[in-house]
Amino acid sequence: MNMSPETRLQATLEAIRPVDSGWIEQARARQLQLTKPPGSLGRLEEIANRMAAIQRTLSPAVRRPTMLIFAADHGVCAEGVNLYPQAVTAQMAANFVRGGAAISALSRAAGAELEVIDAGIAYDVTESDGLLRRPIGPGTRNFCEGAAMSLQDAAASVALGIEMAERAHAAGATLLGIGEMGIGNSTAASALTAALTGSSVVDVVGPGAGADDACLARKRSAVERALDLHREQLSDPLELLSRLGGFEIGAMCGVCLGGAAQGQAVLVDGFISTAAAALAVHFCEPVRDYLFAAHRSTEPGHAPLLAILGQRPLLDLQMRLGEGTGAALAIPLVRAAVEAFTSMATFDSAGVSNA
Amino acid sequence: MNMSPETRLQATLEAIRPVDSGWIEQARARQLQLTKPPGSLGRLEEIANRMAAIQRTLSPAVRRPTMLIFAADHGVCAEGVNLYPQAVTAQMAANFVRGGAAISALSRAAGAELEVIDAGIAYDVTESDGLLRRPIGPGTRNFCEGAAMSLQDAAASVALGIEMAERAHAAGATLLGIGEMGIGNSTAASALTAALTGSSVVDVVGPGAGADDACLARKRSAVERALDLHREQLSDPLELLSRLGGFEIGAMCGVCLGGAAQGQAVLVDGFISTAAAALAVHFCEPVRDYLFAAHRSTEPGHAPLLAILGQRPLLDLQMRLGEGTGAALAIPLVRAAVEAFTSMATFDSAGVSNA
Repeated sequence: MNMSPETRLQATLEAIRPVDSGWIEQARARQLQLTKPPGSLGRLEEIANRMAAIQRTLSPAVRRPTMLIFAADHGVCAEGVNLYPQAVTAQMAANFVRGGAAISALSRAAGAELEVIDAGIAYDVTESDGLLRRPIGPGTRNFCEGAAMSLQDAAASVALGIEMAERAHAAGATLLGIGEMGIGNSTAASALTAALTGSSVVDVVGPGAGADDACLARKRSAVERALDLHREQLSDPLELLSRLGGFEIGAMCGVCLGGAAQGQAVLVDGFISTAAAALAVHFCEPVRDYLFAAHRSTEPGHAPLLAILGQRPLLDLQMRLGEGTGAALAIPLVRAAVEAFTSMATFDSAGVSNA
Repeated sequence: MNMSPETRLQATLEAIRPVDSGWIEQARARQLQLTKPPGSLGRLEEIANRMAAIQRTLSPAVRRPTMLIFAADHGVCAEGVNLYPQAVTAQMAANFVRGGAAISALSRAAGAELEVIDAGIAYDVTESDGLLRRPIGPGTRNFCEGAAMSLQDAAASVALGIEMAERAHAAGATLLGIGEMGIGNSTAASALTAALTGSSVVDVVGPGAGADDACLARKRSAVERALDLHREQLSDPLELLSRLGGFEIGAMCGVCLGGAAQGQAVLVDGFISTAAAALAVHFCEPVRDYLFAAHRSTEPGHAPLLAILGQRPLLDLQMRLGEGTGAALAIPLVRAAVEAFTSMATFDSAGVSNA
């Protein structure tokens, strides 16, 4: 549809409804009939019940699971917040597309589609069939000196995510996963987390991809200065995104919103992705019903973000890579939960004695 | 091979070697070359490194993952330790085979073979193409009154598991999962756990499939009396199995031993399965190198058993079903770990700048 980013965002927000608790109740009643002690499939039951509510059916399905991975660069890298050079964002996006990255391998293993989108990479990206070029700009500006992006660009980044969720929906996807690549983006996510949760800076800045002590001190300092600079403009979600965010963070937020508007479930990866998901909840509370926290990040800022989502992650495998790897790993769990829910026999049909 | 159970067990124990730490070192070195921050795939790296060591190659593979599920009955049910009638063992084994149980659904979802073996069901089992009939006896005897089984039957149950691991190996399986069905078997597993770990009875008896308070008190009492009755005969692993075990527990122990002897990895499910795996470690320490604890059980006795295995489980989804469900859920994690390890690009090959 040819509409402005702001219109698209507004239309999406208006389309989002909380899931109907009646479907959760019906799913719970169905679980009790299946040949297992009540509740014995634990969190798989919780997953299946919510998939039923999201899809408004007792026959929910995982179809064409699709990983949407957004890459973008960050002006805050000028503050020396990262060990890796900024060129790595472009190099890794190319690696994703060529199939050589962890998210490439884990998407293959999960039988998932992998879409890699350039949401605003600063360096030249080698032309590649697999990379979708949709840059909002050549990386954000340094948010220690001003807004990371304009309000228009913030809306455009969210609209990009909405559009990608809609494309996946049109292709038949009922389950999305979000992930990212962006040197410097754990600094942006930390700043957003402090603003969204009210946590202190020291509690939300961690080593990211592997910062040493000096690097960590520069990250803390950058986040402190940014929060101080923008402190009057951090309550409205779009304003917050424009001040402290990133293009890939806006886009992942957009996938959460677009997925929720269309009745798709969205697997949220680690720290950066959860910051985007929490921002989506700030845009629209009921989005929460459509999100699944996939993997517990080792980053200290993850816990307060999870509190906003109201969730415990499904997995805790001590990963700290991002890219959507945790979300990809959780796809088989959703598939298993739905398979058990839809294909198990009932006590009656199987002739099994109930307690 | 036509050999006695005792000979088969002895030959298997002699064939088991610890994994070569040189392969672990080579795998770690390889991990450092892959396009990700060092260690950032967390426990997936640990899984892949051990798969490399088990298979003695830097190209380990998950081929024909096979769930081996053993069903058997328990004489201790006479003590009123369970909410469900004993007939449920046979009913559920039939349900496994027909595809209606949780383990059937989760094996399908994981793309795994499912073998269901009658290791000693007390009730008539409906003839079924899918169920392998290899009963050691019509359920065990009540171990509150005497040994659960003879030493010969204990050896035969372990040999059955070894044979099933060998059959799966001959069919090409590099990854096995163990699971069980046996009304009353959480009581047997609790007794074994107390004997294997020295834990007090109150710390190893839990609700199992859903015992109420009265039932739980009867379980504790039964385990206390059994430990008292057999206390002089609990140090030798075969003797321990014969006194307090079950046919399916012996068979799962045999899968661990047979898998280790042949260089197969074995995913260990929850509480009952881990008791069998800990018994296998008691038979032969190096078996540990071939085992992966798949899912954290909510049963209190699981933690001391995990200490014997020296492992933290990969998953914690609050399940308490057994059947091998946790092991089946972990198959995609092993697949993902191996796919990342064997198919990711290196920093050099991908032209990605290293830190």
